[in-house]
Amino acid sequence: MSAAERTARPRVLVLGGGFGGLQCARKLAGKPVDVLLVDRNNYHLFTPLLYQVASSLLNPSEISFPLRHILRRQNNVRVRRAEIARIDFAEGRAIGADGDVFEYDWLVIATGAETNFYGIESVQRASFGLKDLPDGMALRNHVLDCFESALLETEPEARQAWLTFLVVGGGPTGVEYAGALCELFRLVLPADFPDLDVRRSRVILVEALDRLLYEFPPELGDYTRRALERRGVEVRLGARVTGVDGDRAVRLADGDVISAQTLIWAAGVKPVAPATEPPLPRTRQGRIEVDERLLVRGQDRVFAIGDAAAALLDGKPLAMMAPQAMQAGRHVAAQILRAVEGAPLEPFRYRDKGVMATIGRSAGVAAVGPLRLKGFIGWIAWLVIHLYFLIGFRNRLIVMSRWTYNYFRLDRPVRLIASSAPSKSRRTVSSSSP
Amino acid sequence: MSAAERTARPRVLVLGGGFGGLQCARKLAGKPVDVLLVDRNNYHLFTPLLYQVASSLLNPSEISFPLRHILRRQNNVRVRRAEIARIDFAEGRAIGADGDVFEYDWLVIATGAETNFYGIESVQRASFGLKDLPDGMALRNHVLDCFESALLETEPEARQAWLTFLVVGGGPTGVEYAGALCELFRLVLPADFPDLDVRRSRVILVEALDRLLYEFPPELGDYTRRALERRGVEVRLGARVTGVDGDRAVRLADGDVISAQTLIWAAGVKPVAPATEPPLPRTRQGRIEVDERLLVRGQDRVFAIGDAAAALLDGKPLAMMAPQAMQAGRHVAAQILRAVEGAPLEPFRYRDKGVMATIGRSAGVAAVGPLRLKGFIGWIAWLVIHLYFLIGFRNRLIVMSRWTYNYFRLDRPVRLIASSAPSKSRRTVSSSSP
Repeated sequence: MSAAERTARPRVLVLGGGFGGLQCARKLAGKPVDVLLVDRNNYHLFTPLLYQVASSLLNPSEISFPLRHILRRQNNVRVRRAEIARIDFAEGRAIGADGDVFEYDWLVIATGAETNFYGIESVQRASFGLKDLPDGMALRNHVLDCFESALLETEPEARQAWLTFLVVGGGPTGVEYAGALCELFRLVLPADFPDLDVRRSRVILVEALDRLLYEFPPELGDYTRRALERRGVEVRLGARVTGVDGDRAVRLADGDVISAQTLIWAAGVKPVAPATEPPLPRTRQGRIEVDERLLVRGQDRVFAIGDAAAALLDGKPLAMMAPQAMQAGRHVAAQILRAVEGAPLEPFRYRDKGVMATIGRSAGVAAVGPLRLKGFIGWIAWLVIHLYFLIGFRNRLIVMSRWTYNYFRLDRPVRLIASSAPSKSRRTVSSSSP
Repeated sequence: MSAAERTARPRVLVLGGGFGGLQCARKLAGKPVDVLLVDRNNYHLFTPLLYQVASSLLNPSEISFPLRHILRRQNNVRVRRAEIARIDFAEGRAIGADGDVFEYDWLVIATGAETNFYGIESVQRASFGLKDLPDGMALRNHVLDCFESALLETEPEARQAWLTFLVVGGGPTGVEYAGALCELFRLVLPADFPDLDVRRSRVILVEALDRLLYEFPPELGDYTRRALERRGVEVRLGARVTGVDGDRAVRLADGDVISAQTLIWAAGVKPVAPATEPPLPRTRQGRIEVDERLLVRGQDRVFAIGDAAAALLDGKPLAMMAPQAMQAGRHVAAQILRAVEGAPLEPFRYRDKGVMATIGRSAGVAAVGPLRLKGFIGWIAWLVIHLYFLIGFRNRLIVMSRWTYNYFRLDRPVRLIASSAPSKSRRTVSSSSP
């Protein structure tokens, strides 16, 4: 295709290579538009398995796929790694943090969400999120480091703080990570630390509401609590973390104080979107207001999808989850192609595919339409669905073989304290030289 | 074994879980001594394959093995992750940077080496080493980031600087990494960056001496130069980097200046050892002076092995390489066991196993005794030996399958710009929120 032909085609700018943006870009591949996908990372992250990186089961590369590789055979789709600083709707362009200019005829805002600390600064400083890849890698390093530090700590109370892990948030992320931590501590680490009483380690799951997995049918939430407790997780319902005092004393709303070196914050996310001129219309939650066609209110060539936007279903905003974003991405791609052909835009209709979560080895829960799965069958359903949606044949093969191996051998192969920068530990890692 | 029995047994403290220290600890496993292995990392690093992490072929976990896992079935070997601040020979103890005390009856100093910048500060600030795991991960991130940055750079000279990679040092590490970079750029990245002229990328290998692989027979060094040049590496012999000026202008001794965003320093290593009381006797190179039994001069219960020490062969110090360290580690373990039984110590005799290096796909060189291998057969020899020495059956399986897959498909599966901290890039990676 010549340069002249290319510039004649409508330019679609997709901001964000997450579930929504990537689906949109793939759906537009090979179609009569020029697509530019911009993300601040060079990879698409399969967030649902991030907790398995943070618990030493998977390598980062097994859940993160270079965007360029995914899209490499698509001649009309290009990729740029950049942070977007602002968008000028009147001029039809987005400006990168380094001054790069990205012009568009159609814009798709799919910038996702980040951990929401609800403005509690002491919590934000003291805790780990579990939303992006650096979170997962830093958490893996930190958790392993806690046991190394506990081993060297001579003061009993301080040692117990290294062995206390507080997971805040009883949604799927919190449930899955609490379960995975407990398995790591019960099944794998005792052999690594024969001279430490690993059984003293505590995993405490704190949820403000009165049951776990609030978005699931109540019976599955109850089952999940019992299954986690059988595995050794202490579940605290109706409990809220209000702050963290010096030296890692975590305060709860009921006055209780827990001394823990590790606080994992999975209690919520908030939308992320660049600054725009004029400012984006936002809901109280901070999500971008869109109409039933997923157009940003007041704009006729700008869509917003996924966690960043508040698409409505029966008057209520859709949950901030991957299937919702993927469906919206495909819908928007189809609408842009309709518009290019002169057809009118159609409203978005979300088709509910159900919810699922895993609790640990041989235990999962799923609710699909009227169907309720739990235990082994729920776990298998979870494994199959997640393998299916994972990108790349080789990655599926690797992850499946890891799961299988781990099922029989109880191993966690990636027990590395390794970062490209010093860790958060009390222990120094600098090198001394002569 | 009871606590009383344990304390009655001689305590061996091994500092460093590299090739020398790990061999020593494994050889002492199951023997009538109590071994404590201390390292500042929780893993053993298989350094010879580090350049494959830095060139996106292998995951960190495939060349790094948790020390606790390697030693987990050895009841008389314990592991501590700590940085040693100093050693007190008179008291027989080592003190950790955090104040932890490790007492010993026998001490083995196996603290290895680190990148040697020969005091050129501007080089140290501007370059990447290729010696430990954070080096390899940071370099992988940076190299991929260079192409992303080049794509966004509009000024031609600045763009070329992002595409210029200067590797300093014509030993095995420099040769192997220069070859791997060229393959990554020629065979893999063009498909990732269809809108960038990847052929403009330059890999320049700078060596101060008049041939590559100086420790190898001359004909293999010459063959290596030709093989690298055929692959597109610019080889500069008799050239030295003297400094780096602002904005990445790398100065050579002959007055030439090369503008390069990437400087990889593989020009030498220097020994690392903790401070001691009294100070360690050192050679001019900084290596610990040892006698023919590998005892530190002036000490009768302190050994030093590997890169940190200067074991002599025919009056010259042994090369700072893995086989030398491994043999010394096994020797020292055997000597400690002899001493425990009241037998006199024996001198260390190094058995030369030869040298080998790989240049890239289907090309390697090896010199074993009178044997000279090069080309495909040299490459196969390199693959087999490195697989053999890699730790862990599963890791061998994974690495072998990666190599095989890569041989036929020319892939580099770990093309992630991902760290647990912001990257070194000009491009910002912070997130913006509403």
